[in-house]
Amino acid sequence: MTDSSKKSVLVIGGGAVGAIAALNLEVGGLATVTVVLRSNFEVVNRDGYHIQSCDHGILENWKPSHVLPQVPAITDGTRYDYVVLATKNIPDILPIADVLKRILSAGNSHTTVVLIQNGLNIAKPLLESFSQTPVLSGVSLIGSAEIDPGVIVQDDKDRLLVGAFDNPNVPAAKLEEKAKDFVRIYGAGGKTECVYSPNVLHDRWRKLVYNACLNPICAVTGLDTGRIRLAPGAVEELVEPAMREIVEAARMAAGVELGVKVVKEMVECDPLEIYLRPSMLADVRKGNFLEFENLLGEPLREGTAKGVQMPTLRVLYSLCKAIQWRTKESKGLVSIPPKRNAV
Amino acid sequence: MTDSSKKSVLVIGGGAVGAIAALNLEVGGLATVTVVLRSNFEVVNRDGYHIQSCDHGILENWKPSHVLPQVPAITDGTRYDYVVLATKNIPDILPIADVLKRILSAGNSHTTVVLIQNGLNIAKPLLESFSQTPVLSGVSLIGSAEIDPGVIVQDDKDRLLVGAFDNPNVPAAKLEEKAKDFVRIYGAGGKTECVYSPNVLHDRWRKLVYNACLNPICAVTGLDTGRIRLAPGAVEELVEPAMREIVEAARMAAGVELGVKVVKEMVECDPLEIYLRPSMLADVRKGNFLEFENLLGEPLREGTAKGVQMPTLRVLYSLCKAIQWRTKESKGLVSIPPKRNAV
Repeated sequence: MTDSSKKSVLVIGGGAVGAIAALNLEVGGLATVTVVLRSNFEVVNRDGYHIQSCDHGILENWKPSHVLPQVPAITDGTRYDYVVLATKNIPDILPIADVLKRILSAGNSHTTVVLIQNGLNIAKPLLESFSQTPVLSGVSLIGSAEIDPGVIVQDDKDRLLVGAFDNPNVPAAKLEEKAKDFVRIYGAGGKTECVYSPNVLHDRWRKLVYNACLNPICAVTGLDTGRIRLAPGAVEELVEPAMREIVEAARMAAGVELGVKVVKEMVECDPLEIYLRPSMLADVRKGNFLEFENLLGEPLREGTAKGVQMPTLRVLYSLCKAIQWRTKESKGLVSIPPKRNAV
Repeated sequence: MTDSSKKSVLVIGGGAVGAIAALNLEVGGLATVTVVLRSNFEVVNRDGYHIQSCDHGILENWKPSHVLPQVPAITDGTRYDYVVLATKNIPDILPIADVLKRILSAGNSHTTVVLIQNGLNIAKPLLESFSQTPVLSGVSLIGSAEIDPGVIVQDDKDRLLVGAFDNPNVPAAKLEEKAKDFVRIYGAGGKTECVYSPNVLHDRWRKLVYNACLNPICAVTGLDTGRIRLAPGAVEELVEPAMREIVEAARMAAGVELGVKVVKEMVECDPLEIYLRPSMLADVRKGNFLEFENLLGEPLREGTAKGVQMPTLRVLYSLCKAIQWRTKESKGLVSIPPKRNAV
């Protein structure tokens, strides 16, 4: 197999999820991967990744084919078959359409975008900016963390559900073909479980049962998911009521039936061997922005628009919004008067 | 006036509230004050307090008549006219009845207990343990903080509302007399506004409009009250709905009519010149226990028992409970298995 037979893949975001995605794609031998790094560019460019993975074992100084410190400009003429977004999706801070505008023309139909990102309605802004572009949904069930820059610990196996977001301007057959092709190259190494799953909405709502609930509850209380299960009342009074609100919103807003057992399954889904710190808790501890608009805001808006009562998630959403504003202040994005009466 | 004509007062808790209470009582000249200190005993015993007060000006090395490192034992034979509790009230950690059992006999009727503490139903456990003891309610509207051990900054004037909690075993006239006597000795120095206010329930529910709402919202979001007012949506989506729940609970559970304007008044009550950090926010930052059961749990339980819908406070309460459990773990009061599957 020559290099030219390989697919050219750009992975934007080389953290806990993106690094393992790049690894899977390279290991399969069907792709040449360029990874765009930000905070860890220097260390990965110099030394590569240190990866400790339940799927891949231990890799020292592993590097993808190329690393870049920023998204290459469209004028570079580089043409990628796939652009994978494996960053957090924080539309209130940095809309992903703005990121992709660097690399994709408005009329692009060649490059397929793959969003390995959580939450609801994340493809909407892309379909507005890139109406001819196939956009795939990647729902990742991986357990992985970047514990230091370039140091990845993957302690729960990578399972990736891939399907296409609806796009009225692209034939359904082409969307399906792109999704299946990406599944093929991602899973070619045999180390991971990547499956084609056409029911994108079902996959996303199902994952929200965890992500819209446990994630912000852990972020706000400072407890990991293991401790939430140990803290008296936290599951019964917070987690389960929130999850039931998502189940009802999925039914009313999207016709997605998640079944009665999903709440118990999601409460208990983290491996018992670890005290898992979900992403929002990790972010709040690092003073990072929270990925709460797509995880929590969108399902809340969709559910309440259909008349679903979502009192638990409403409060959690407003708390996250206030915490996000605090982070904006700490990063200098909002300023406050030195004395309030000076406003 | 001889010393023997003075009232003997024991103030338990010499932090932001207790130090100013002790100062007012000493300044008035009608009381001899003993203050029980814990974390700041050493520094105050050696150097006294450094107090910067909007009521009293700057005092260097100020000491009350006596300071003690712990509550004196009942066997000491010391007899106090008043025992003032100016500690936080955290019944889930240290019930105040347990504190008072050191100094008061079960049959005590001489010593009057004054609770300068927030929240609802705080006298209930005392009436069970000390059925003959007059217990007064002190609702303090002071703005004061202990910024370092023994260093008190009082930036909003001390206003204290004093009345008696109902006690079927003590004649109402005696309760009223004790309350008015305490008002007299507390306000004698003329530097503070201490008034007799017989409507204890009204005063307490009114203060809960602030304390059950702004206090936990600030603690959970990490924002002070000034920033909560600046953060988009926080007042409309969190603070005001929570406050309206308290207003309704006061009406339904206690027949207390707080009026429609109280919400706006409480949102805007902190002086505009400062970014005020309410006590629960200060506590969460210091890793201290939160005073949430009497401030939030009791009004929530009273309101919901009467059928009041309190969705905002229900979520805030459960979040505070989880945070309290986290603090218990950090202080070694609960232990968790090193691996959860080892349970």
